[in-house]
Amino acid sequence: MKKLCDFVYGIVGLGLMGGSLGKAIRGNILSGPGSSGKIYGSDINAASLDLAVSQHICDRVFSIDDVDAMLRECDFVYICLYPHATVDFMKAHRDSFKSGAIVSDISGVKALIFDSMDDFMRPDVDFIPGHPMAGSEKEGYVNSSGGIFKNHNYIVMPLESNSRENVELFKTFVSELGFTRVVETDAKIHDHKIAFTSQLCHVIASSLVDSAEDNQITAFGGGSFEDLTRIALINAPLWTELFLANRKELLSHIDRFIQSLSTLRSEIENGEDEKICAYLENVRNRRMAMGRSDSKIGLKKD
Amino acid sequence: MKKLCDFVYGIVGLGLMGGSLGKAIRGNILSGPGSSGKIYGSDINAASLDLAVSQHICDRVFSIDDVDAMLRECDFVYICLYPHATVDFMKAHRDSFKSGAIVSDISGVKALIFDSMDDFMRPDVDFIPGHPMAGSEKEGYVNSSGGIFKNHNYIVMPLESNSRENVELFKTFVSELGFTRVVETDAKIHDHKIAFTSQLCHVIASSLVDSAEDNQITAFGGGSFEDLTRIALINAPLWTELFLANRKELLSHIDRFIQSLSTLRSEIENGEDEKICAYLENVRNRRMAMGRSDSKIGLKKD
Repeated sequence: MKKLCDFVYGIVGLGLMGGSLGKAIRGNILSGPGSSGKIYGSDINAASLDLAVSQHICDRVFSIDDVDAMLRECDFVYICLYPHATVDFMKAHRDSFKSGAIVSDISGVKALIFDSMDDFMRPDVDFIPGHPMAGSEKEGYVNSSGGIFKNHNYIVMPLESNSRENVELFKTFVSELGFTRVVETDAKIHDHKIAFTSQLCHVIASSLVDSAEDNQITAFGGGSFEDLTRIALINAPLWTELFLANRKELLSHIDRFIQSLSTLRSEIENGEDEKICAYLENVRNRRMAMGRSDSKIGLKKD
Repeated sequence: MKKLCDFVYGIVGLGLMGGSLGKAIRGNILSGPGSSGKIYGSDINAASLDLAVSQHICDRVFSIDDVDAMLRECDFVYICLYPHATVDFMKAHRDSFKSGAIVSDISGVKALIFDSMDDFMRPDVDFIPGHPMAGSEKEGYVNSSGGIFKNHNYIVMPLESNSRENVELFKTFVSELGFTRVVETDAKIHDHKIAFTSQLCHVIASSLVDSAEDNQITAFGGGSFEDLTRIALINAPLWTELFLANRKELLSHIDRFIQSLSTLRSEIENGEDEKICAYLENVRNRRMAMGRSDSKIGLKKD
């Protein structure tokens, strides 16, 4: 079986994530002495392609019009597009993948990928859905970095049809990129959990900034506001799509959050010091327990 | 006039903040060759006092029963207690301060300090209210560090009765501790702004943890949840007191936040993609503007 360091990788979409993944593949997987692997890239942004070549991240780049020529040569294709664009791409280029290729995506919502799967799956191509839990508030290839994955989680949602050997290879690949926790789950659980850890947090950070009375507020900041609103430097079109693609799960978490907030609010309004203190003690204990949960629910260190 | 490096400092309360301030005074202000300054400390926790002596942070320590003997010798007294305890201490020991001393506090809510001022002010003691905008989710002297103030804000609320010379000296002192932005304002503005940047953020972080369905959620975290809930490792009694002492301001900010959140929630529920995108674009622009607000509203770099 071919080794990861000898694969031809094809990255579709050289934005922040595609660029960062390419850099991590170049730096961590293809940097050994015997490696014969290559990285190809495709993007609608010609400047990103030029930069990926001049930085020696991509061996060859392809315009989107030429992407089929790229796909035919790749052992591993990484679709690094927004969720709907991922589905559209898979459908439009279904017949161009090399037989035996592994394909994965990075979409932050999986329902619409799984709902469309019948339209793009091929028996001889192994599509392994995944979600790298890393990113940046900065956008585009120009801000990409191979170092953003270190100590982060990667969620893999293997299909029954996936070759177990390929899934294990994919998990090895991911850990070589720098990810330290690989969580195997299914699309339904993924979308439900991510609606909380990711989308709800972006909703809260955005609403907090929106509710600020003025833009000079950081003069009174001590780190808390800054922590809570780092992610409010938000990529608006991407997150609009993510919020809507996972609308039902997200709304349920927003409502639970508002309920928790309203409980604390009314305890404050009523001056119920013992209840507030008990609420905060419980929060502290839970947050400490969350920090120690690495070994739970089938987390595997590869 | 006496120089900062020759002052006798008295720290009342050697917890996380008192300990950290003591360490920064020792490291940044009394570390020069000609310094004759000293640091005295008092706390109810004997172990903290022992540690402060063995670490050479305090030259002498005093039990709370002996604190009047300490106060009588100090040129500068730092009251590092919770808000109500600060008021109680100032009232109980009003007559023990050295004539000409500068006294400051670190209380995160100023209304109750200002409301009680008539009961503890002395014409020959210069009480300069302040609020160092730094801290840690860890507690106690054992977790204190002189390095936590770097690049942080310090809010000073000078009184009309303060000697301008002492206020300037205090601002120099604060900048030597590592604080880079010193904001001068009044207690009313302070309490209003802090209710947003600090207390609201702690309420939100706490409610977010409270609303989590389980404690294994961090397996699905990518950094956002972790960022938003670092401060949820909360000191429950302290924050209960802060929330209640600034209740009116805090409630108004909670309500504005819930209003902003509800707007975004209903846009998501109704699938209004253009409105969501415009909301998030506006948030992004505002957050960027906030990050660049250093030169505004009378911020001074001392």
